[in-house]
Amino acid sequence: MRLLLALLAIPYERVELDIVKGETRTPGFLEKNPNGRIPLLETEDGKLLAESNAILFYLAEGTSYMPNDPFARAQVMQWMFFEQYSHEPNIATVRHWIMHLGVSEEQRQVLAQKQKQGYAALQVMEKQLQNHEFFVAERYSIADIALYAYTHVAPQGGFELESFPAIRAWLDRVSQQPGHIPITQG
Amino acid sequence: MRLLLALLAIPYERVELDIVKGETRTPGFLEKNPNGRIPLLETEDGKLLAESNAILFYLAEGTSYMPNDPFARAQVMQWMFFEQYSHEPNIATVRHWIMHLGVSEEQRQVLAQKQKQGYAALQVMEKQLQNHEFFVAERYSIADIALYAYTHVAPQGGFELESFPAIRAWLDRVSQQPGHIPITQG
Repeated sequence: MRLLLALLAIPYERVELDIVKGETRTPGFLEKNPNGRIPLLETEDGKLLAESNAILFYLAEGTSYMPNDPFARAQVMQWMFFEQYSHEPNIATVRHWIMHLGVSEEQRQVLAQKQKQGYAALQVMEKQLQNHEFFVAERYSIADIALYAYTHVAPQGGFELESFPAIRAWLDRVSQQPGHIPITQG
Repeated sequence: MRLLLALLAIPYERVELDIVKGETRTPGFLEKNPNGRIPLLETEDGKLLAESNAILFYLAEGTSYMPNDPFARAQVMQWMFFEQYSHEPNIATVRHWIMHLGVSEEQRQVLAQKQKQGYAALQVMEKQLQNHEFFVAERYSIADIALYAYTHVAPQGGFELESFPAIRAWLDRVSQQPGHIPITQG
């Protein structure tokens, strides 16, 4: 989201909330997003939009980061739903546990399952990128942006990218796009 | 997906695969969808599209089931990503375990967590539906279709809908739409 905002040169104010401290579960924030999750986009006229990939969809529409062809658009959505269902709950969650929460003895089994499913998601990406420069229509789109966010920091969650050469080459391509900025520090 | 195909009167051939029997993990199916998941749409000219909500997006574009307003469109996507991230992995998965797989002693704790998160998702839906006839723009859209699929069968997974009157009224509204068909038997 910050990456796309930067690429599109859209000015914005950033408000940081600490999930671990419960700042996304305060009555004030739950009034804005009843699901208690970040990111949340607030427009100048006060409209609120949740879900990172819905925000990317909203910001990218009409720009080069979202294709015009109906089937290519659906493929962008396919990869964004893949990101939310098969990638983020495993790769981002394992990284979050390891970096911020620690892993209790009881969570070991769930962790192992998430590691396995995270590698399975990376394998699906690798297969697509073996024959494609970018995920959809051979051009950089919000499908790439959505998947880049937690893939390029996957090693911080213990995911080794050694055996995924196509992913590593794609990470380089994304980071070399004009206007690229560093993201996903937290 | 079957519901939208019926509403739009699009003819299709249905191929059923049994997840429990591993029919979505055969080499032949993995060739079509490397992520090994159903549903998968195959168009007349042989194009393949995975992810249930990407399929809904593709089929609904240009019809009354997807709004034209850019922000309303993004809100539809918001609820569809909510469905995939916060609803399906809890409500549909718990139902699948209970109906088809059974719950091992080791899974009890994960089950309890998923039950809690499933009820949290229902609470988010209830809040939205307390003031709205449908999820977005006061009209029946693919956001409703996506969320209807596993909400109307949630009691089969042990989720009680007694304390969600707005959800129950919305389920009735959806099932009373012209052209409605029964879905989610499996």
